[in-house]
Amino acid sequence: MSGRIQGNVRIVGTGLIGTSIGLALSKQGSSVYLSDASPANERLAADYGAGLVATGNETPDLIVVCVPPDVTARVVAAELKAYPEAIVTDVASVKSRILDELAASGADLMRYIGSHPMAGRERGGAASGRADIFIGRPWVIATHALASGPAMKLVEELALDLGSTPIRMTSAEHDRAVALVSHVPQLVSSLLAARLVGASGVELAGQGLRDTTRIAASDPKLWVQILGANASEIVGLLRDYRDDLDRVIGALADVDASGSLSAIDQAIANGNRGVEQLPGKHGSKRSQLANFIVVSEDRPGERASLFNEITEIGINIEDLKLEHNPGAQLGMVELSVDPSQAQKLQDDLTTRGWRFA
Amino acid sequence: MSGRIQGNVRIVGTGLIGTSIGLALSKQGSSVYLSDASPANERLAADYGAGLVATGNETPDLIVVCVPPDVTARVVAAELKAYPEAIVTDVASVKSRILDELAASGADLMRYIGSHPMAGRERGGAASGRADIFIGRPWVIATHALASGPAMKLVEELALDLGSTPIRMTSAEHDRAVALVSHVPQLVSSLLAARLVGASGVELAGQGLRDTTRIAASDPKLWVQILGANASEIVGLLRDYRDDLDRVIGALADVDASGSLSAIDQAIANGNRGVEQLPGKHGSKRSQLANFIVVSEDRPGERASLFNEITEIGINIEDLKLEHNPGAQLGMVELSVDPSQAQKLQDDLTTRGWRFA
Repeated sequence: MSGRIQGNVRIVGTGLIGTSIGLALSKQGSSVYLSDASPANERLAADYGAGLVATGNETPDLIVVCVPPDVTARVVAAELKAYPEAIVTDVASVKSRILDELAASGADLMRYIGSHPMAGRERGGAASGRADIFIGRPWVIATHALASGPAMKLVEELALDLGSTPIRMTSAEHDRAVALVSHVPQLVSSLLAARLVGASGVELAGQGLRDTTRIAASDPKLWVQILGANASEIVGLLRDYRDDLDRVIGALADVDASGSLSAIDQAIANGNRGVEQLPGKHGSKRSQLANFIVVSEDRPGERASLFNEITEIGINIEDLKLEHNPGAQLGMVELSVDPSQAQKLQDDLTTRGWRFA
Repeated sequence: MSGRIQGNVRIVGTGLIGTSIGLALSKQGSSVYLSDASPANERLAADYGAGLVATGNETPDLIVVCVPPDVTARVVAAELKAYPEAIVTDVASVKSRILDELAASGADLMRYIGSHPMAGRERGGAASGRADIFIGRPWVIATHALASGPAMKLVEELALDLGSTPIRMTSAEHDRAVALVSHVPQLVSSLLAARLVGASGVELAGQGLRDTTRIAASDPKLWVQILGANASEIVGLLRDYRDDLDRVIGALADVDASGSLSAIDQAIANGNRGVEQLPGKHGSKRSQLANFIVVSEDRPGERASLFNEITEIGINIEDLKLEHNPGAQLGMVELSVDPSQAQKLQDDLTTRGWRFA
């Protein structure tokens, strides 16, 4: 396997993302040199196969800075200076502030192009690195006026080599987009989950609350950096959200007043419309899939049979979710399939004795 | 199969819940009589096997009112009057308002006990009815001072016959609990999803946003009734939520001020604590499970193999989730297992050639 990236690559910061990039590039035969503020981390990533420990005497063509957001600009500036022939990118999840800091420091912006692979894992660190975490994910190439064509091309090749889909947008567009699809949802979910602390009645919780609060389990240390660095984009969206919330609170506080029920109806209906905007798997919209629920015994053998039989029937499952029945040994498996195949799948599963909920 | 409920049961309202109760009771040999404002609906439910169409001359021991929340009190009062020997319950998802309306109407509250099966489906109507939607779900028995012991016992037997776990709480406790675990999450999710309407950058959305907004696809008509009938409980929680939101907005609006970052950190950390409160499957808390991700080809055969091999290894999966890689033919399957079995499962799967992300 040979990638588009043929030269030497230097990776600065061997946490989850840096190590994962190193593993993927090494696998395809690139020469990867690893540098980390911690010599132990550096060696750990090298031991995992992410590349060789850098001596500092290499002549990298591409440098990928994978350090925490709050030190990214400083490290990028130092790398641009230390390696005057190299193209430098970073992978931080906010982009405008880093570009501003670099411009203010007088860095050679022609050789810098920021990027953001939309990939990650709950666990960080070199030991969690995997070559395949980027496959099929969007990878934002944060364009700016001073970036050279070759710089942009090289970073896009990096994204392609790692199996990602490069998407060009400006730093400002990127920061606005991630505020919408990632940062605001994080806060909304965390604030909702926080309401459960010390509350009674949580034993009635079902799958809805579980889904809505899943990301509230995320790491506060990392999120403080991300949210702090993108505060201006987030604040605007959160204020719009609060305005909508205030309208609903006003309607519920005087629910018999004229217009109150229609305000609530509007809020739920707008939510329906919003969900329709979400990209589904393989680019299909969620609303275009047919969903139904199969009842199964809550044993791995039972589920394996279900998947076996679906394989035999020959229909591809677009999405799958287990529903829980707290206290019971029965499980519900929600299947999403192409609507044109839904009837056949349901008929065939019924013939085979499966029950639907 | 013979249930605890031996007498005649009258079901008023043959939508999803009424039909499902009828199907389950008929299956276990109870005599079920169906009544609906729409003769066509009545016949449809009877055709599905949910019971016989009621003539009005039966002498039911138990009446289950399964009509929309806004007409429930009126129908319960009429049934109590028409059948002076029967115990009457309802299944509406708000309880205090119905009890208040019944008390105001002078109904015989000794024979009434409200209830709420925590079960449902995205689709409504008799045709969506299934006998097993109640299995393993909590079923709230909404106690009140005037309810007779036999009334309470009979409704608990109904819940048990349908496979649910009866949970006694007062109407007020119930309404507070569902405001917390269901109504507020619904609004929070709908308002978040509404931000996506007409926005750009949605193509960067990942699983986090998808989970957080899943319930925003729910039916506005039904939710207006539910939210309107439980407005007083919801408003208090939403105001607390807004206070927390305001604190975060204030911190983000002046992120360099002293205390801003710690306020954001606090919000995310409180969310972590909230998620820990959620009941997991079989009563276990989510945080007590070990989670890891297996990479698979995005084909049903591949997933079936995975489940087969896990079966062979002999380890029970507590939770499972598919992660999507938009545009790619690779899937990630997140497995949650008992921590004591995690290492063995990972080792055995590795030996069998599975990759982890």
